[in-house]
Amino acid sequence: MLNSARQGHASVLLTDHYEYTMAAASLADGTADRRCVFEVFARRLPSGRRYGVVAGIGRLLERLHGFCFEQDDVDYLRDAGVVDERTADWLADYRFTGDIDCYAEGDLYFPGSPILTVSGTFAECVLLETLILSILNHDSAIASAAARMVTAARGRPIIEMGSRRTHEESAVAAARAAYLAGFASTSNLAAGRAYGIPTSGTAAHAFTLLHADEPAAFASQVAMLGHETTLLVDTYDISQGIRNAIDAAGPGLRAIRIDSGDLYVMTQQSRDQLNSLGANDTAIVVSGDLDEYSIAALAAAPVDMYGAGTAVVTGSGAPTANLVYKLVEVEGRPVVKRSENKATVGGRKTAVRRHKPTGTVVEEVVASQGTPDPMPGDRALQTRVVEAGEPVADLPSLTDSRSLLREQLIAIPWEGLKLSPGDPTVPVIMR
Amino acid sequence: MLNSARQGHASVLLTDHYEYTMAAASLADGTADRRCVFEVFARRLPSGRRYGVVAGIGRLLERLHGFCFEQDDVDYLRDAGVVDERTADWLADYRFTGDIDCYAEGDLYFPGSPILTVSGTFAECVLLETLILSILNHDSAIASAAARMVTAARGRPIIEMGSRRTHEESAVAAARAAYLAGFASTSNLAAGRAYGIPTSGTAAHAFTLLHADEPAAFASQVAMLGHETTLLVDTYDISQGIRNAIDAAGPGLRAIRIDSGDLYVMTQQSRDQLNSLGANDTAIVVSGDLDEYSIAALAAAPVDMYGAGTAVVTGSGAPTANLVYKLVEVEGRPVVKRSENKATVGGRKTAVRRHKPTGTVVEEVVASQGTPDPMPGDRALQTRVVEAGEPVADLPSLTDSRSLLREQLIAIPWEGLKLSPGDPTVPVIMR
Repeated sequence: MLNSARQGHASVLLTDHYEYTMAAASLADGTADRRCVFEVFARRLPSGRRYGVVAGIGRLLERLHGFCFEQDDVDYLRDAGVVDERTADWLADYRFTGDIDCYAEGDLYFPGSPILTVSGTFAECVLLETLILSILNHDSAIASAAARMVTAARGRPIIEMGSRRTHEESAVAAARAAYLAGFASTSNLAAGRAYGIPTSGTAAHAFTLLHADEPAAFASQVAMLGHETTLLVDTYDISQGIRNAIDAAGPGLRAIRIDSGDLYVMTQQSRDQLNSLGANDTAIVVSGDLDEYSIAALAAAPVDMYGAGTAVVTGSGAPTANLVYKLVEVEGRPVVKRSENKATVGGRKTAVRRHKPTGTVVEEVVASQGTPDPMPGDRALQTRVVEAGEPVADLPSLTDSRSLLREQLIAIPWEGLKLSPGDPTVPVIMR
Repeated sequence: MLNSARQGHASVLLTDHYEYTMAAASLADGTADRRCVFEVFARRLPSGRRYGVVAGIGRLLERLHGFCFEQDDVDYLRDAGVVDERTADWLADYRFTGDIDCYAEGDLYFPGSPILTVSGTFAECVLLETLILSILNHDSAIASAAARMVTAARGRPIIEMGSRRTHEESAVAAARAAYLAGFASTSNLAAGRAYGIPTSGTAAHAFTLLHADEPAAFASQVAMLGHETTLLVDTYDISQGIRNAIDAAGPGLRAIRIDSGDLYVMTQQSRDQLNSLGANDTAIVVSGDLDEYSIAALAAAPVDMYGAGTAVVTGSGAPTANLVYKLVEVEGRPVVKRSENKATVGGRKTAVRRHKPTGTVVEEVVASQGTPDPMPGDRALQTRVVEAGEPVADLPSLTDSRSLLREQLIAIPWEGLKLSPGDPTVPVIMR
């Protein structure tokens, strides 16, 4: 298995040891079948963030569909002493038979938003904790950071090119989350194939260094890809690089890329130089450790496209969304942990977002064990996606999720789009 | 494929688009077969860090072994317009036939250390860039953070329990890297199975909340797992929780876990209370957003074991090692990119670490296109692991890598172990 071209571990083992121990103990003492409700929510947003973006729901539902046990999975758990015989037998027949309700991918969330609700028996629900949180914590962290970069870019496209800075499989999920948040394309081919995301690429410094000189490298690239390519002009000297680029491709060259130096100054100089060479339509792509702040700082520079890498795939300072999965209801009775600094509200929650007549969001209203009193302009935030273990709705496409996010970022109070540290822009009112 | 229990993408597509475009252009212009040397190194360590830990080599070599193209991979690349027919044919027969030399997993690195050297033809080497960097950047970031936590814990064991805070497959690699760095165990079962890492688990608040009351939950857990278990005592009131725990398990209870509150104060009170109940040997496990600093701050508290989650799997502020993969030699000729702020030294490097007679490391000496003049006490840092495309050495086990790291952290100047921000503790001298 380890030496096959495709790797990846069994979904059922992407799980913490204690979930199996708890399931085993509940099977032994008769509590395993109690009807439970677990909820995913954030106690707080990453420091200074004004909103979070829900992402990963589509990936999660695919993974959950494959959450069943092969014989060797059960054997491992029994032989390693994680579960007893009774539990091993139960696992062999395991299939999630409960319900899942959740916010749509691309919607916003705030502290306390009941992003995802899992209901079913204790034992079947408890096993899903780690997988659900891993996917939602990672993907939401990336999408939340990416959305800020998209806002900062003010309509200019951004290419996601951070695969090399994160775990090889995270890179694929990160490309998906960034695209969902409004990025234009990705460099990651697995993401292109798995999710239909446009892929794009330019050239690396290695390609120039491989050749006798820069003109030879550019000539080769243009011969292969035509003038609809992007030439990387900063391997030696940017000004000479631009002359070489236009010599090789003509003034119809699609784009140049600059990956180093003071991008504000270099792009001004490069724009002037390109125009003087008649290459007025040749675009300028910039990259090099860009985050939302450096993108915003280039708003007045003649940049046509950004490439973002490290910052987006690592969540720009917030690599996890810190979502939690908490038991809130047992057999219809609200439950809550009492320790002072992690107070949560018990009971199954129902959430709506409340709007002014203009369409601007006022607040999110969350009711425990009931529904918020309806008001004109309310939007229900949760949809049932799994019922009795089966998918009940076609999931929105990534394109739908992109549109939803774009609409929601227009609907929140404008302060929500500021990059500066601030409070969550929409209050969550617990009723 | 997407709905199978095991997921994971083809290794050959965990790659940036431009690597294929460059390979294609080099095949077209005749430069594809030029002998090249690429090196992986860090330009700098994460801010304030005094050393980095090499990790991921074992995972990388497994992945590289599976770096070959199924027909559907080639079809995707051709149909998506990433490569032309010539390149598609070449990919169908692709097999890496070059050499790889590298630092051992568990060894230290500093800015400029030539951690991994790939030599072969341009086209075969350029395709590996993203996969190599993804794996080494992720795993080294986690191991580097984890090693600082192990130092801070001063011999007390740490459980890795961060799976839920990171991508589901990263979680498995993170557990491996943390174990390599000296963690005692992981909660991640896939890591337990894939790498033989000891797994451990306690119980969650959900298990207590599921039951009518805490005594019922504890009685169930003890009935299932015996007194060799860890009871989570902070769901309601810690002091009452400890009484309930000893009532349920007797004074021979193995451990209690505290996950909230002021851990310094709570562990003192809990120790006194346990002793007064005759449970002098009952261990105290603490968890709750622990990082190297909060672990260090508990040095004088009666803690027996730490659980670390978010901080370790996200690299404690440095989620990527920022390693780069640079072309340094073409047909025996050193090459180097000239742009001022990313200066690198061309030519294939050979590295040794130089020691005082006492065994303390003095410096790392790196020679370009040659070997450092030998000195007594030198230790060569690179080993050939792949020759002509085939593995040539049994890789060290994770246990070997743990030992190596432990030895190296003793050998560096003692300032290197300080948690405070500082410079790299070993200078790298380029010869």
